[in-house]
Amino acid sequence: MRALRRLLAAAVVLVLPMQALHAQSSANFLSMYREDVARLVRAATSSDFAWRRLAELTDLHGPRLSGSDNLTRAIAWSVEKMKADGLENVHTEKVMVPHWIRGQERAELVDPPFGDVAMLGLGGTVATPPEGVVAEVLPVNNFDDLQTHAADAKGRIVLFNVPYTNYSETVTYRTTSAAAAAQFGAVGVLVRSVGPTGLRTAHTGSVTYAPGLPEIPAASISAEDANRIVRLTARGHYVRMRLVTGGHYEPDAESANVVAEIRGREKPDEIVLIGGHLDSWDVGTGAADDGVGCVATWEALRLMKHLGLRPRRTVRLVLFTNEENGLRGANAYADRYGEMAGNHVFALESDSGVLSPATFGFSGSTAARLMMAQIGALLTPLGLPEIGPGGGGADIGPIAQLGNVPTMAYLGDATRFFVFHHTAADTVERVAPDDLSRAAASIAAVTYVVAEMPERLPR
Amino acid sequence: MRALRRLLAAAVVLVLPMQALHAQSSANFLSMYREDVARLVRAATSSDFAWRRLAELTDLHGPRLSGSDNLTRAIAWSVEKMKADGLENVHTEKVMVPHWIRGQERAELVDPPFGDVAMLGLGGTVATPPEGVVAEVLPVNNFDDLQTHAADAKGRIVLFNVPYTNYSETVTYRTTSAAAAAQFGAVGVLVRSVGPTGLRTAHTGSVTYAPGLPEIPAASISAEDANRIVRLTARGHYVRMRLVTGGHYEPDAESANVVAEIRGREKPDEIVLIGGHLDSWDVGTGAADDGVGCVATWEALRLMKHLGLRPRRTVRLVLFTNEENGLRGANAYADRYGEMAGNHVFALESDSGVLSPATFGFSGSTAARLMMAQIGALLTPLGLPEIGPGGGGADIGPIAQLGNVPTMAYLGDATRFFVFHHTAADTVERVAPDDLSRAAASIAAVTYVVAEMPERLPR
Repeated sequence: MRALRRLLAAAVVLVLPMQALHAQSSANFLSMYREDVARLVRAATSSDFAWRRLAELTDLHGPRLSGSDNLTRAIAWSVEKMKADGLENVHTEKVMVPHWIRGQERAELVDPPFGDVAMLGLGGTVATPPEGVVAEVLPVNNFDDLQTHAADAKGRIVLFNVPYTNYSETVTYRTTSAAAAAQFGAVGVLVRSVGPTGLRTAHTGSVTYAPGLPEIPAASISAEDANRIVRLTARGHYVRMRLVTGGHYEPDAESANVVAEIRGREKPDEIVLIGGHLDSWDVGTGAADDGVGCVATWEALRLMKHLGLRPRRTVRLVLFTNEENGLRGANAYADRYGEMAGNHVFALESDSGVLSPATFGFSGSTAARLMMAQIGALLTPLGLPEIGPGGGGADIGPIAQLGNVPTMAYLGDATRFFVFHHTAADTVERVAPDDLSRAAASIAAVTYVVAEMPERLPR
Repeated sequence: MRALRRLLAAAVVLVLPMQALHAQSSANFLSMYREDVARLVRAATSSDFAWRRLAELTDLHGPRLSGSDNLTRAIAWSVEKMKADGLENVHTEKVMVPHWIRGQERAELVDPPFGDVAMLGLGGTVATPPEGVVAEVLPVNNFDDLQTHAADAKGRIVLFNVPYTNYSETVTYRTTSAAAAAQFGAVGVLVRSVGPTGLRTAHTGSVTYAPGLPEIPAASISAEDANRIVRLTARGHYVRMRLVTGGHYEPDAESANVVAEIRGREKPDEIVLIGGHLDSWDVGTGAADDGVGCVATWEALRLMKHLGLRPRRTVRLVLFTNEENGLRGANAYADRYGEMAGNHVFALESDSGVLSPATFGFSGSTAARLMMAQIGALLTPLGLPEIGPGGGGADIGPIAQLGNVPTMAYLGDATRFFVFHHTAADTVERVAPDDLSRAAASIAAVTYVVAEMPERLPR
């Protein structure tokens, strides 16, 4: 992966000698910032302030699903703390968000009579009647397998028993499961949890219904329970299950993006945007997804302020609302600032945890990538992650698209992250203080340089 | 550990030259069995039969708490399968067992209003009223700390937040927590789960009430929830909790030990006893605790039968009932066979999982240990575990005590075992097929040699 990346970088230099030369001179210039960056890194890594802030956020406010009192409290708490940090232009920007409530739910094997299955309703699922739906389970391995057994799906609960490979590949089975099963008359759908096998751990996450098809109850079950059902049916057992879901929507609720800035000293209208999302699923305490992304980017801004660093451009921190089940915060931001999208020089999101080994992903033009390689050459000697491909993020996506904004993602190790992603186990214990310090240091460093360097990062 | 063990073995040889010489000649004689032992090892390690049997047991019958229908079905299933294996003298031996039922339970933080806490009532806990008990939480670090804060315990829910070191040390806080807290007027007790931090994983297990003290509701909570409560109180928050437990006892229920044998060809009245316990806690499917101990010892017997090996002495397999919350099966066995306790040559129990790296523990006289060292010298070249100190086991304990019987334990790796011990995550996924094959091979080998060798293992 890294070797390939270097090869590509070398190729770019070969075919773009003029720009390379140009970047080279910038790099010489950037070396002026080495000491400021080192100060940021030292400040971030010599303290567990950020971890304690994350613990306080998650201890005090717990899970923060859109529409919940917890999220409302967390927003007010963030504003108060940002003001106490001395950040500038601290305010909220109202966003109306969906308000889905999980309600009572459970799943059990009734035939054979084995009792409870570890489950979580998928976010957005409809409710069953209080007594649930009871039906034979039809396990399938993938969409093709469902097609093959389409005639058997009617009146059944379809179980998508799809082994986890990676999130982007496997999550399709969660989001589209209900529509896929409903088209053949299934009365409910179960998805093997999207993640490596944990400790009988069910993972929630959104399900999307398709227009014109029945909205059937949808839940995820633990890998162990999926295995058990599959082994039983493979041995010829008739497996029947009761699935009870209680999901329903209340009217949209008032929520908000939280904004704080350090105003640029020379070009305050040029925006370097950083952030994460403050909402979470309604299980666990949303520490890794995405309390830590909020706190790491917030800490980057706080440290600049604390060290008296006011870069040329404005650094704007946004804690987005409703990333998990609507993206209303991201869209509201793009609506509000759409006319100023072109003023967004750079956008960085942290929404993949901060587990070691972490990397930076960057998406932008060849010219921007070349400049980032020079910034990387300044940062990596300080022990910060290398910059590879794959920037972007759900919350910075809409504004970045409007403004053709170069984007960066802080990417924690995915293998361990998806063990507890969207589960009751997403608590502050999943975040190591050192990993968070390193994330804050890395984000502070790259953000500061991009906000400070004389030339704007090319689009 | 191993170095120490070798040093001790060497010391024994130095101080007991006569016995060493004697053992040496036995070892020469034992080498006759090398080929039979190798056949057992090959048969065990070339098949996943035992793992599939464990999957079937746990898939079909699930958790098997004493008094449950699941346990009754598992007993009947075991008898049927043992007969199908061609084992001898297959029968059940009736045992009346306690019949505790967990009922509905939950715990939540009501002040601050944070919602559900991951919990499991401790086995044997009394029930609260349906609305639970609501009280301020008093976290303490250990028994001394409770003494120091004794005046604060009245009317509170005491939380024993004792970090896990090892099971035998930490489990004391689970078993005696209720009595310790009740003496100072606590209205409920919570215990940080006894095990390494999992994934918001609560561990059950027995609690013991003390005569003359109030029986207060008792539950374990996940390490993450304990941490959160402790962090909140450390920050000065008033933490109040609702604890609902639903535990109650039904009248004693009929259960049974399951027995199967290969009768000895020369000394059928000399018994080599092997086994595990078929009951489990009522969460998970009791795969590692102790379905795997039952299946590994059973497989040892099945392989001897399958390979036509009928040793000099009788090998008796017992799947004990009610190890977890009463030990009635172990005591019933000792009652029934007490007069023949002296005929028990050796007893081996597997009740610590089979996770790699596993070892054998042995307890017996110096003479017996010396003989076991010679047996070990025969087995370890075949890749079987070394024999160290620390035999015994809860189920073989009573008969071993009566007959001064040398005992052995098959000891899976403890660190990983206690991550899921007594939790909903104790499923067949926690048992690797190779680890189980190796356990069956190891137990078959040592059992066969002890049952076959001309001289009885010294007491």
